[in-house]
Amino acid sequence: MIRVCVMGAAGYLGGELLRLLLGHPGTEVAQAVSTRFPGRRVDSVHPNLRAQTDLLFSAPDDLAGCDVLMTATPHRATMALLPEARRHARTVIDLSGDFRLPDPAVYERYYGVSHTAPELLGAFVPGIPEYFRAELAGADLISVPGCMATAAVLALRPLAGLIGPDVQIDARTGSSGSGALAGDANLHAERSGAMRVFAPVRHRHEAEVSRLTGLNARMTATGVEAVRGVQVVCHATGATGAAGAAGTVGEKALRRAYRDRYRAEPFVRIVVHRAGAHRLPDPKLLSGSNYCDVGFAADGDRITAIAALDNLVKGGAGAAVQCLNIRTGQPETLGLGFPGLHPI
Amino acid sequence: MIRVCVMGAAGYLGGELLRLLLGHPGTEVAQAVSTRFPGRRVDSVHPNLRAQTDLLFSAPDDLAGCDVLMTATPHRATMALLPEARRHARTVIDLSGDFRLPDPAVYERYYGVSHTAPELLGAFVPGIPEYFRAELAGADLISVPGCMATAAVLALRPLAGLIGPDVQIDARTGSSGSGALAGDANLHAERSGAMRVFAPVRHRHEAEVSRLTGLNARMTATGVEAVRGVQVVCHATGATGAAGAAGTVGEKALRRAYRDRYRAEPFVRIVVHRAGAHRLPDPKLLSGSNYCDVGFAADGDRITAIAALDNLVKGGAGAAVQCLNIRTGQPETLGLGFPGLHPI
Amino acid sequence: MIRVCVMGAAGYLGGELLRLLLGHPGTEVAQAVSTRFPGRRVDSVHPNLRAQTDLLFSAPDDLAGCDVLMTATPHRATMALLPEARRHARTVIDLSGDFRLPDPAVYERYYGVSHTAPELLGAFVPGIPEYFRAELAGADLISVPGCMATAAVLALRPLAGLIGPDVQIDARTGSSGSGALAGDANLHAERSGAMRVFAPVRHRHEAEVSRLTGLNARMTATGVEAVRGVQVVCHATGATGAAGAAGTVGEKALRRAYRDRYRAEPFVRIVVHRAGAHRLPDPKLLSGSNYCDVGFAADGDRITAIAALDNLVKGGAGAAVQCLNIRTGQPETLGLGFPGLHPI
Amino acid sequence: MIRVCVMGAAGYLGGELLRLLLGHPGTEVAQAVSTRFPGRRVDSVHPNLRAQTDLLFSAPDDLAGCDVLMTATPHRATMALLPEARRHARTVIDLSGDFRLPDPAVYERYYGVSHTAPELLGAFVPGIPEYFRAELAGADLISVPGCMATAAVLALRPLAGLIGPDVQIDARTGSSGSGALAGDANLHAERSGAMRVFAPVRHRHEAEVSRLTGLNARMTATGVEAVRGVQVVCHATGATGAAGAAGTVGEKALRRAYRDRYRAEPFVRIVVHRAGAHRLPDPKLLSGSNYCDVGFAADGDRITAIAALDNLVKGGAGAAVQCLNIRTGQPETLGLGFPGLHPI
Repeated sequence: MIRVCVMGAAGYLGGELLRLLLGHPGTEVAQAVSTRFPGRRVDSVHPNLRAQTDLLFSAPDDLAGCDVLMTATPHRATMALLPEARRHARTVIDLSGDFRLPDPAVYERYYGVSHTAPELLGAFVPGIPEYFRAELAGADLISVPGCMATAAVLALRPLAGLIGPDVQIDARTGSSGSGALAGDANLHAERSGAMRVFAPVRHRHEAEVSRLTGLNARMTATGVEAVRGVQVVCHATGATGAAGAAGTVGEKALRRAYRDRYRAEPFVRIVVHRAGAHRLPDPKLLSGSNYCDVGFAADGDRITAIAALDNLVKGGAGAAVQCLNIRTGQPETLGLGFPGLHPI
Repeated sequence: MIRVCVMGAAGYLGGELLRLLLGHPGTEVAQAVSTRFPGRRVDSVHPNLRAQTDLLFSAPDDLAGCDVLMTATPHRATMALLPEARRHARTVIDLSGDFRLPDPAVYERYYGVSHTAPELLGAFVPGIPEYFRAELAGADLISVPGCMATAAVLALRPLAGLIGPDVQIDARTGSSGSGALAGDANLHAERSGAMRVFAPVRHRHEAEVSRLTGLNARMTATGVEAVRGVQVVCHATGATGAAGAAGTVGEKALRRAYRDRYRAEPFVRIVVHRAGAHRLPDPKLLSGSNYCDVGFAADGDRITAIAALDNLVKGGAGAAVQCLNIRTGQPETLGLGFPGLHPI
Repeated sequence: MIRVCVMGAAGYLGGELLRLLLGHPGTEVAQAVSTRFPGRRVDSVHPNLRAQTDLLFSAPDDLAGCDVLMTATPHRATMALLPEARRHARTVIDLSGDFRLPDPAVYERYYGVSHTAPELLGAFVPGIPEYFRAELAGADLISVPGCMATAAVLALRPLAGLIGPDVQIDARTGSSGSGALAGDANLHAERSGAMRVFAPVRHRHEAEVSRLTGLNARMTATGVEAVRGVQVVCHATGATGAAGAAGTVGEKALRRAYRDRYRAEPFVRIVVHRAGAHRLPDPKLLSGSNYCDVGFAADGDRITAIAALDNLVKGGAGAAVQCLNIRTGQPETLGLGFPGLHPI
Repeated sequence: MIRVCVMGAAGYLGGELLRLLLGHPGTEVAQAVSTRFPGRRVDSVHPNLRAQTDLLFSAPDDLAGCDVLMTATPHRATMALLPEARRHARTVIDLSGDFRLPDPAVYERYYGVSHTAPELLGAFVPGIPEYFRAELAGADLISVPGCMATAAVLALRPLAGLIGPDVQIDARTGSSGSGALAGDANLHAERSGAMRVFAPVRHRHEAEVSRLTGLNARMTATGVEAVRGVQVVCHATGATGAAGAAGTVGEKALRRAYRDRYRAEPFVRIVVHRAGAHRLPDPKLLSGSNYCDVGFAADGDRITAIAALDNLVKGGAGAAVQCLNIRTGQPETLGLGFPGLHPI
C-alpha cells in the first residue's frame, strides 16, 4: 500500500487527487493537508467524498512522512514550500506550475517573478507518461504539465516531421481551471455562458508546449461554459518541402502518425469520424475520465490537430496518479478506469 | 425630464435600473452612487452600458437633490441610510428588503435583526402596480417587493375566494438573485447546473406573500441553473365548501379569474396552452422584459398556480420604473417595451 | 459470470446499463439489442464506451438466451414485447413504465392506454432494494420504478407515522429523462436554461409513490437546466395528533427516523448541514453515481423532505444493476462504486 | 410606414426579424410566411411575441406585394424561390447563404451543389453597412453575410496593410445557429456543455471572409455552450517588411487602426481593457443587441483580432434591419436600440 500525502488538498485538484486515491486499490491517503481547513472533515469541502472517507484535513506543519507527496498548491507558493516538504517523501509529484519550465528565465517571463528554487528545476521529469514513461519509472521529482499543455503535446508530438515549426493553439477551458478561490469575476452570473478570452496571446502553457514539442507554439486561451474540460485546436502547416513551400499532408498520413504513436497507449484515443455529433474530441464526454482524445483534419497545406481532456484528471490529478502507478511499479491504469458519461 | 438618483448602482439591480433609465425617454440619471467604485466609469462595471453613457459613479457623500431616489442597497444597510437619504428626493423607491414588511416583529423574525427605522415601515406602498396603482400615483415612499413575492402575489391574488388559506410555494431562482458579491459558494464551478435548496422552509418572501394575499404562505426556494429568472409553483386546495371539504375548482373558473383580473394589465400575460414547449410560464423567455407570465392547472381539489418573471426586471428594476411612471404621471409602459428573446 | 442482455440498448438508459455492466467484474454483456442500429458499433452511439468494448448492436429478432434480460425499451412498447422476450432469460429487470403499477386501471389512467399484459402486472417486484431486498433476492420479474418515484419513496417512507397522508411533491429533472429521441421541443436552444413545468399536476410517477408509500401523493414536474439529475422536494404536514390538529415534528425526530432507516444502506446518504453550498441533496454532485441523497427540514407542522439522484443511475440503470447483484447473490455494491464528481 | 414581408418566418432568424420589425417605429409586418405553420398564430411559435402581435403565418403561395421582402429561408431552397419571390417587392434582403458568394464555382465548392440562379449572384450588395453603406442606400438586392463572416470581416478589415495575407479564424458559436429544426444531434442532452468542432477546416464562411477582406482566410468552427452568440478569434502575422520578415505591430497601431475605422460607427465598439472579466469581446453581453464588439492583442509579429456578436441580430436579423433603414432613408439605428443585458 503506497502512502500518499496531498498538499493543497482543499482545492479542486486536491479534491480530485483524493477521489482517485481513495478509490485506488493500491494507495492510501496518509494526509490531506490544507492551510485553510485544518481539522475540518474532508467531505465538508469535497461533498462527493461523503461516505467515502472520514479523513480530516491536516495543517501544513503536521506534514509527516509518506511514500509519495503530491503538491496541488498554488503557483509561486509551491516553489517556496517544496524544498522543505520534499524531505517527507521519497517521491514528489507536483501539480503546480512552478517546476514545469526548466529554464528560470522562461519561468520569470511567463510567471512574472523570479524562481526561488532554480536549482531544482532541471530535476523534474514531466508527468506525461506517453513520452516520459521510462524516466518516470525512476523519477523522484515529477512535474505534471499544465492541462492545456498536456492536451497540446499529445495532439502535436505525433506530427513531428510532418508539420512546420510554427503552431497556433486555440485553447478553451471550463471554469474549474480557475480553482476554488477564483474570485468575483468567476461568479456564476459572470462566467455562465461566457466566451472569455482571458489570454489573447502568450498563455503560459505555450512555453511548456514549445519546450516539450520543439515547436514554436503560441497559445490563445478562452474560458467557455463548462466546469471541467479543456480542448485545444492547434493550427499548423505542412513541413516545408524541397521547393520551399509548405507541403500538403493527407489525412491518411495523419491517421498513420497518430496510430503509430498511440496504438498501445491506454489513455489516448484517436477520435476522427466522418460524421456525427461526436466525430472529434470533445471534453464533454471526458468528465472524470483519464482519457485524452485526439483528432485531426487537413485542408491542403493546413493541418488542424485537436485534443480534449478533463483538466482535473488527465490534465492534473489523473496524470499524477498514472505517474504514481508507473513510479511505484503498479499497473499503469490502476484506479483510473472510469470511462466518462454520456449523456452528461 | 425626471431626474433620478440610483444608490447601490454598482450591484445587479442597480445596473438594471441604469439600463432602463438610460433607455427611458422621460428620465435622466442624475447620479449613480456606489460605495465601492466612486469615480469609476459606470460601464466599467456594467459592460452592457458601453456606448450608452459616460457617467461616473458618485460617492454616497456626494448625493445631491433629485426627483426620485431609487435605493438598490443591501438589506439591513438600507434602513440605516434611507431616513437621511430620502431628504434628497421627493419620492423614494426602495428595492431592498428593509421596508417590505410593515410589522417590525415580522421583519425581525425573517431578517434576524431589529428594524432601526420602524417609524417609516407603515408609510411604504408596495410596488405592485397591478394591486396598488391608485396608491402608487401619490406615494412618496414605495417599496418594491421581493422578486419571488411579486411572482407569487400575481399568481395567487386572482384566486381569492377560490382557494383555501394554506399555500405552499416552490420558488426557483437564477444566480443573479445572489448579487454581484455572492461569494465562493456562487462560483461558476459550484453553482453551475445546481439544484440548490437554499431555503427548504421559511424563505423570507413568504412573509410578504402572506401579507399581500391574506393567505398563509410557506415558501421553499431553490437555486437552479439560470442567471436571470424566477419561477414560483404555488400549491393550493379549493376553498372549503358548505360540506366542509375542499372544493373542486375547474380550469375554466381559474381562467376566468385570471382573465378578469389581468385583462387590462400591460405586463401580466396569461400563459396556459394545451401543449408545446412553452405552454406554461417559463422565465427563460423573459430575460430583460417586464412581463410576469401567469398560468395554472387543476386536478380535483388541488390547484397549481405558476408565475415567471425576470428577477431583475419585473422582480426589481422594471417594477421600480413602472412605479416611477405611475408616480410621475407618465405612460405606465414607457421605457419598458423590450419583449424578451426567443430562443435564448 | 452473469450473462446479461440489454434491450433498448441505444437509448440513454440502455447506454448507462452498458457502461455499468461493462465495468462490472461479475457480468458480461451478451447482447445489446437495438431496433434502430443493428450491426452498428455500440460506441458509435455511446461515445463514452470507446475503447471499452467492440460490441455491435443486435437486432431484436436475434435475441438469444441469457441469465438476465434488462429492458430499457419505451413505455407501451415494453408490455408488447416482454411476454415473449422473457422466455430468453431467467430474470427480467424492466426499466420501462409498463410494469410499475400493479393495477391495470391505474395504469390506464396515467398512461392513457389499456395494459396488454395485465396478467403479469402483479408479478413484478419493485426495484428499490432499500424496501424490497428480500423479495428481490428471489424475484424473476423486477420493475425499476420511475426516477422521480424512487427519489420520493426514499425521501418519504422513513416518515411513516410522522406525517399526514397528503403529500405534494415538486420534482425537477434534467433533459436526459426525455430520452435520446426527445424531439424539437428538446433542442438545446429550446431547453437550455428552461424552467419548463411539463406536468403541472398528475405526473405519472405520483401513482407509484402513492402505491409504494401508502400516501396520497401529488406530483408536479419541471424540467430545469441539467442533463442528468432528479430532485424531489416533498411537502407534508405532521401527523394529526389526538386533538385533531397537524402535529409539530422536530428536526431531531426527522433525523432519527432517517438514520434508523438508512444507517446500513450502502447507497442512501443523509445530507442535512447547517450551512454551505452543499447542505442539502443536490443531483449536481451525483452524476454517474448510484447514491440517493436525502435531507429534510421542518417549520412548525410543515415538513420538507428532499431527495436527489442521477436519473440514469440510481433512478434507472444503477438500481437495475443493484437489483441484479442482489438477485444473483453478488455483493450488492459491485460495479457501482463511482462516487460522483466535484466540481462538475 | 415600410411594409415588410418575411419569408421563413417560423425559423429563429425569422422570429428575430419579426421581433425587430414589430418594435420598429417605421416598419409594419405585412406578412410572415411559413411553409410549416400557415394559419397558425405567430406567437405560438415565437412565444416572446405574445402580446406583441396577433399576426398569423401566411402560406408561401399567398405572398403579396410589399416594400421590402426579407428571406430567412434555408440555404439551397432560397435560390430556387427568390427569382420569383422578388417580384413582390422593390427590395429584397436575403439572410440565407445562397447569394453571398458572387462566383458560382466558389458557391459550389462550399455548398456542394450548383447554383440555380447564377445570373443574380453578382447583383447582391453585402449587408455590412460599415463597408457598403453607400451601395446599400440604393440596393435592391442585399445579401446579409454569415454571422461568423460578419464578425471576422469587422475584426479584420481595419488591419489591411498591417497584416499578412494568411489568416486563421477560430469561430465559436451557440446552438441557435443550427436553427429550429436542428435534429437529434442538437438535443439538449447532446449539445449542452459541448465543445463540438463541427468544421475543423473549411467552414463555409471562410469563403465570404476571403472575398470581403482580400485575405486568404481559413476558418475552424466549434459549437460551444450558448444559445446565441458568435465569437471569432483571428490569428494573423504582421505584414512582411522590406527585409522579407513578418513585421511587429504594436498595440498602439492596432488601436489606431480600429479607432480610425469605427469611430463613427453606431454598432461597432472597440473593447480592449487591461483587466477584468469583460476586457475583450464576449457575445454573452450581446444577446438581443445589434453591437459587434471588436478587440485585439499583439505579441511580437503575431496579431490576434477578436470579434463578438449575437448571431441572430448583428449576425442576421439586426443587420438586415440596419440595411433596411439605410435603404429606406430612415435613421440607421432605428429599432435597434436594445443594448444587451448584464448579467445574463
